[in-house]
Amino acid sequence: MSAAHFQIETEGRCALLPITDLVRGAVADSGVEEGVCTVFVPHTTAGVIINENADPDVARDVLGWFSRAVPPDPRFRHAEGNSDAHIKAILAGSSVSIPIAQGELELGTWQGIYFAEFDGPRCRRFTVSCIAD
Amino acid sequence: MSAAHFQIETEGRCALLPITDLVRGAVADSGVEEGVCTVFVPHTTAGVIINENADPDVARDVLGWFSRAVPPDPRFRHAEGNSDAHIKAILAGSSVSIPIAQGELELGTWQGIYFAEFDGPRCRRFTVSCIAD
Amino acid sequence: MSAAHFQIETEGRCALLPITDLVRGAVADSGVEEGVCTVFVPHTTAGVIINENADPDVARDVLGWFSRAVPPDPRFRHAEGNSDAHIKAILAGSSVSIPIAQGELELGTWQGIYFAEFDGPRCRRFTVSCIAD
Repeated sequence: MSAAHFQIETEGRCALLPITDLVRGAVADSGVEEGVCTVFVPHTTAGVIINENADPDVARDVLGWFSRAVPPDPRFRHAEGNSDAHIKAILAGSSVSIPIAQGELELGTWQGIYFAEFDGPRCRRFTVSCIAD
Repeated sequence: MSAAHFQIETEGRCALLPITDLVRGAVADSGVEEGVCTVFVPHTTAGVIINENADPDVARDVLGWFSRAVPPDPRFRHAEGNSDAHIKAILAGSSVSIPIAQGELELGTWQGIYFAEFDGPRCRRFTVSCIAD
Repeated sequence: MSAAHFQIETEGRCALLPITDLVRGAVADSGVEEGVCTVFVPHTTAGVIINENADPDVARDVLGWFSRAVPPDPRFRHAEGNSDAHIKAILAGSSVSIPIAQGELELGTWQGIYFAEFDGPRCRRFTVSCIAD
């Protein structure tokens, strides 16, 4: 069985939470040596992205752009009032697929995997599926 | 053989068409018990997204944002006049990958899969590929 | 072994470089007849997209929209000064998955695969992983 399920608690309304270590652990546990790892987020106001793992200002700048590009808008009709979060989640995307080589994620030097929360804080989930070549 | 091909007729220039049931059927037909399902759209002015399956106002708000964020622009040079649709398709994305567990799509409670039409109405296609762990 | 690694030299700060032929070659070399091909970009200021392969004005219009939607912004704090490139890379996405049928990529008639450079020129890499059904 090579799918792993995770739960995380998010903080703030919008946040990028680093999950790289959790995904690396799931890849190691899967035993897959060569293949592809898919990270999937089963929510409609959160997503998953890959971006810089070094300077935390990148995450801050990314979230700042999202909030300016998708502001609250009186034209939104969805009664829950979180249409902006749904749109941001679509832009981020629900899944990302990463190669596995020699039993490890083949991320670039500066890449980290982030759970993208757009309507927190909440208890959230994601799944890591590893498929062998 | 675990790839299934579908045709749909879209309505209006921009629309989010629910295809979750078609994808679920393809997963059941594939016989894959544990693995990953990839939905792929072979067009350049349409894509595939995952978002809320409950309130139709979410789809309306999403499409409203796309039309305001990527309006017609006199600076566009593409002679067909549908550059906005190409850009929206890139933002939506051409593929999404979803885990399969116990023979079923592991979508979240509120998630639905949508064919995202940005230059309809047209006859469109998409593919569902299921890969076992 | 069905993963292939490529290096390309990009030109200009922002560019969409066609990589369809390289990906098709990797699929042929993999020997996979039916399955899924994942293209992955291991950078944080570049991504991978699918879009029109015919009129080069589409790429020009796409890049024009990205530069207007994510302009330089004095509110960005990332010291390297390329936050816009990180955001564009997130919008483009780091991976795309495409069906393989009868040993060939099942791209649509008008689809091409593009390496999306947002902070070039640089020497860049991407990976093509092919998984059989």
